[in-house]
Amino acid sequence: MERKWENISLWLKQEGMDMAFVHSTPSVFYLTRFLCHPHERLMGVFLFPEADPFLVCPNMEQARARKAGWTGQLIGYDDAQDPWVMIGEALRKRGIGRDATIAIEKESLSYARVEALTQLVPGATFTSVDARINQLRLVKSADELNILREAALIADEAVQVGLDALAIGCTEMEIVAQIELAMKKRGIREMSFPTTVLFGDNSALPHGTPGGRPLQKGDFVLFDLGVVLDGYCSDITRTFAYQEASEEQRAIYDAVLTAQVAAVEACRPGLRMGDLDLIARNLIKERGYGEYFTHRLGHGLGIDVHEYPSIHERNDDPLQTGMVFTIEPGVYVPGVGGVRIEDDVVITADGAEVLTRFPKEFQIIH
Amino acid sequence: MERKWENISLWLKQEGMDMAFVHSTPSVFYLTRFLCHPHERLMGVFLFPEADPFLVCPNMEQARARKAGWTGQLIGYDDAQDPWVMIGEALRKRGIGRDATIAIEKESLSYARVEALTQLVPGATFTSVDARINQLRLVKSADELNILREAALIADEAVQVGLDALAIGCTEMEIVAQIELAMKKRGIREMSFPTTVLFGDNSALPHGTPGGRPLQKGDFVLFDLGVVLDGYCSDITRTFAYQEASEEQRAIYDAVLTAQVAAVEACRPGLRMGDLDLIARNLIKERGYGEYFTHRLGHGLGIDVHEYPSIHERNDDPLQTGMVFTIEPGVYVPGVGGVRIEDDVVITADGAEVLTRFPKEFQIIH
Repeated sequence: MERKWENISLWLKQEGMDMAFVHSTPSVFYLTRFLCHPHERLMGVFLFPEADPFLVCPNMEQARARKAGWTGQLIGYDDAQDPWVMIGEALRKRGIGRDATIAIEKESLSYARVEALTQLVPGATFTSVDARINQLRLVKSADELNILREAALIADEAVQVGLDALAIGCTEMEIVAQIELAMKKRGIREMSFPTTVLFGDNSALPHGTPGGRPLQKGDFVLFDLGVVLDGYCSDITRTFAYQEASEEQRAIYDAVLTAQVAAVEACRPGLRMGDLDLIARNLIKERGYGEYFTHRLGHGLGIDVHEYPSIHERNDDPLQTGMVFTIEPGVYVPGVGGVRIEDDVVITADGAEVLTRFPKEFQIIH
Repeated sequence: MERKWENISLWLKQEGMDMAFVHSTPSVFYLTRFLCHPHERLMGVFLFPEADPFLVCPNMEQARARKAGWTGQLIGYDDAQDPWVMIGEALRKRGIGRDATIAIEKESLSYARVEALTQLVPGATFTSVDARINQLRLVKSADELNILREAALIADEAVQVGLDALAIGCTEMEIVAQIELAMKKRGIREMSFPTTVLFGDNSALPHGTPGGRPLQKGDFVLFDLGVVLDGYCSDITRTFAYQEASEEQRAIYDAVLTAQVAAVEACRPGLRMGDLDLIARNLIKERGYGEYFTHRLGHGLGIDVHEYPSIHERNDDPLQTGMVFTIEPGVYVPGVGGVRIEDDVVITADGAEVLTRFPKEFQIIH
């Protein structure tokens, strides 16, 4: 089995750094295959250019770490112990002392933990390992793509479950419940995020939350959902009209669909991410809805439902083969309703493979 | 309406500090009533000893911040803007410059954000606002207690739903699905954490995850679940035997129940938290199961399902009236099964009020 953490050891050696501490649940999972949500408890992997790494986790998680394939040193602690004492000892054994250079996940490691590290390693200099891990996580392996493909197809199924459950007078929350029940029955333990189903006016809130609003004729129905499969997330949005649609609803939908399809078709390695955003944004502007497209085009997708990169107009990074992200333009007109259409895509040698397959053509549901 | 953030302004004044930055979702909710999960986007409230505070959030969340009652300055930004530029301007207007003393949530604020603050305020000194916010959040108001009481009673209902759904051959995950469907139908949008249902041997894993194991005669059935109601969490664990129970299962259950009841009865203001843990721990040791009680007695409960304080044997802090926490001893015997019994309690003037009410006596389910 590939040991992804060795990439970090090699990088430390190349960069002349003394150690790395990787603590975030998704990054530890990526590097070690150990998926652990330790709440406020300390968990993480310490990596070195030459010396053997060690993993720290609560005692009660040790068996799971072994089961996940971690064969190296494992430091467990119980709730009445201070793990930093044990970490200090393990660092001393590896010759890490005063003034060492330590790569950390700056974007998420708390200041308190940086202080704790500084106590153990006085005069430490902190550099960032975020970009390095993002770069590793950015380009998905064949195994990861297989999981992401399957997760996307399950999200498609979930949309169909939601559609099948619609009936005049049903509430948003009832449809959420039906979708999540069906997913659990097929073995999905966790959704990527709380399932969103919005009717009518509520669909005009990009981050609206489902409630007790009953479905009415002429409502937009927006589904935004995803599933976690083997630690990887999918994320799909589809919008429908219920029983009838006004001319304005059709015009909004057509603007969003045109922009979404154009962005998917424009994908290719080397394209500036900001330009991909602008392709969709300009088409929506041309239809007169520019002011109602209030968010970025999309976001990276993988172990996290929102991960690097962010596809917004000022991002100068180029698309790369193997990157997975969402393409999800939306137009939200207060008082009328909102439409968002979101697919998960992977960049291929000459374009993009679309992982979510649910049809996107405008549909009136009866 | 009480403006809880004023407590922080007053504290800054008393301590002679220049500002506080509070960024975590639960703490911002506690101080402002604005509940926002901004994913990786920046959100938070900046507070000052004299000057007016300001709230920073993504543009798309501004309407919700106003609806939640925030009447002060609101800085919104879109995905292509750098919020730190706008924050810098707002700080300059309030006279915050070089060498200011800044109180932050050290336990959760990332090192990258501390660096961003340092860019705006060169030579800044960082102190911790965590303990102050924990202290405010620790003692619940009458309004908070009313919500927590209701959330606990809904958790009781959820356990009953799970019990009613049990049948030979059903899987753990099916029972999870039934429980969460019933909760959604009664308007609960979010569980406190992924619902845990464990059968037989699986119940011996304190953090086991439900899967496809079918229920068999003689299994332990362990439910650990909670609901989020108006931003506050409940958390209950109950364990049952299915159709029959061995002498060993009865002995384990009796040890845990004895310890749990003794701890609940021992609660009173002023008791050392560590001693409360030890009351339960020693009773379990006396029954010969000491090595199988592998975690702390409990944890604080409120906006977070795990919040301050941690009830473990080395915690010297005293119990205080109005504190809400869990009491949840457990014994996990590999190959036999595990029992955990968990209640949510609030410390009263002369003892504890138990919020979760589901019966705890040993039950064989038929």
